[in-house]
Amino acid sequence: MHLIDVDDIAAAEKRIHGRVVRTPLLPCPALGEALGLDLAVKAENLQHTGSFKARGATNALLALAERDGMPPGLAAFSAGNHAMAVAFVGHAFGLPTVVCMPPHAVPTKIDAVRRYGGEVVLTDDLLGTCRSIAADRGYHLLPPFDDPDVIAGQATLGREILTDGPPPELVLVPVGGGGLISGVAAALRTAVPTARVVGVEPVTANAVGHALRTGGEDPPVRQMSIADGLAAPFAGRHTLAHVRALVDDMVEVSEEDIRAAWWELLDATKLLVEPAAAVTLAALRTGRVRAAPGTRTVLVLSGGNVSPAALASLA
Amino acid sequence: MHLIDVDDIAAAEKRIHGRVVRTPLLPCPALGEALGLDLAVKAENLQHTGSFKARGATNALLALAERDGMPPGLAAFSAGNHAMAVAFVGHAFGLPTVVCMPPHAVPTKIDAVRRYGGEVVLTDDLLGTCRSIAADRGYHLLPPFDDPDVIAGQATLGREILTDGPPPELVLVPVGGGGLISGVAAALRTAVPTARVVGVEPVTANAVGHALRTGGEDPPVRQMSIADGLAAPFAGRHTLAHVRALVDDMVEVSEEDIRAAWWELLDATKLLVEPAAAVTLAALRTGRVRAAPGTRTVLVLSGGNVSPAALASLA
Repeated sequence: MHLIDVDDIAAAEKRIHGRVVRTPLLPCPALGEALGLDLAVKAENLQHTGSFKARGATNALLALAERDGMPPGLAAFSAGNHAMAVAFVGHAFGLPTVVCMPPHAVPTKIDAVRRYGGEVVLTDDLLGTCRSIAADRGYHLLPPFDDPDVIAGQATLGREILTDGPPPELVLVPVGGGGLISGVAAALRTAVPTARVVGVEPVTANAVGHALRTGGEDPPVRQMSIADGLAAPFAGRHTLAHVRALVDDMVEVSEEDIRAAWWELLDATKLLVEPAAAVTLAALRTGRVRAAPGTRTVLVLSGGNVSPAALASLA
Repeated sequence: MHLIDVDDIAAAEKRIHGRVVRTPLLPCPALGEALGLDLAVKAENLQHTGSFKARGATNALLALAERDGMPPGLAAFSAGNHAMAVAFVGHAFGLPTVVCMPPHAVPTKIDAVRRYGGEVVLTDDLLGTCRSIAADRGYHLLPPFDDPDVIAGQATLGREILTDGPPPELVLVPVGGGGLISGVAAALRTAVPTARVVGVEPVTANAVGHALRTGGEDPPVRQMSIADGLAAPFAGRHTLAHVRALVDDMVEVSEEDIRAAWWELLDATKLLVEPAAAVTLAALRTGRVRAAPGTRTVLVLSGGNVSPAALASLA
């Protein structure tokens, strides 16, 4: 299994330059003081489409185009952020895009896909329907996370953390399918070998942690969490290989702790982030992740796509 | 009546430099495209205490200290943002602070005052109780808006808009008691005489608009709005004089339109702003304020202090 390396990440950075937002790394002195840490957040909620997924999708399409030319169209399956990212990149390159989404997908996310001109197919059989449509139309199926080009795209976020601030000692990353943490860990590992990279999952949506423990890729039950962005239907082969090789630790947090941390994060940063982005603060607040006072810590705020209904759950 | 001038604003800027956040002016291309405007937002929700009030309170205390020396303590009355700002500035200078708040004040705002070390007195008679406590203890009563030093402090926000971006053609400002728009209009008027400065109030909390129409300072009825930060109990003499002389137009928006604009603003900017900050977008969306296509427009996002209950009302 090829793990992505500095050359892959540099190539991805060059490809997506100017096509995605270079999101700010924001110091959080007040929240840091409350935690006893030297804290900053990578505000990826300010990314195009409201999540880091725009990086991986853009890099994957451009890497494909270099190898095989532009495909006639794009297909994808996702309940949310990846759906928007593929519609976004399809729109950017004038490609027709079809996205398979579950019938229970949040209406605001379905609308967002359509605003980018994406065609939405609601189906319970995400993967099967998507494969069939892609085959019928000759579209390229752009995978949500288990792909070296997607991982290299997400890795650019890790590179920016290194460029825009002092070398971090601890980086906390929300984990769904594992694409983001695979990329971030790859970017950090060689540059700052002493930095700890820790992934955080909901207890109720722990596809990667479960796969690491059991050796299989499939999660045990249907994944459900307030951090809906992390409810991956499976863990990937590529992502598991990266996590095994490059990530220091994986921890899990409860729904109640995610909710409390989400409110604290909104209130402290005044950034609208999705619940998934708050699992890292939950891990610090509950002691699942411990760090010496003053540790230079970065929380990756993975996205900001939140539904009105989810916000209402805070009250 | 003395209107604040460029010297007052320059002095305020010097006083508060390094004590408040220089908040970013953020371009909003997607929202701008939807509105047909060249749009940016002044993200004052990222200010210390979560609102512009930290500017005025800091300048007022330091201007007072220059004239008469530091007072032995600070007193203030406010349901929210001014309360936090006075507690913040008291804490910054090691002064004891007492803040009178209404019994129905949002618990998260009461907690915030206490976190800054402020003493909270819950009372229905805000002004009377506050005056009495200030007299008893010899504390300085720091006014929420109707004061030239407070207005000059808020004006620094207008100066930053001029410094950090191209000269705006239209600036929209939420209006409660009128301190913010008085300052912003003063900062803009001489530097960019052609810029239109428009204030926006809720229909149900229109202290300044009502006073302009009737000539009196008192609002007609108890002011209530989802934009609770704008429910000023009265319009001031200083602020009315500034608004009359310097502001191009005042418009009013409904509760329903504020709510819709608030959600759109959260979703588009991924910034957590309070409902008060959304009245300006409501004014554009409803046509209460019209502008030619491509107009260089700035929305002042006045604050980000929002309660969980208010967020729940979005669902």
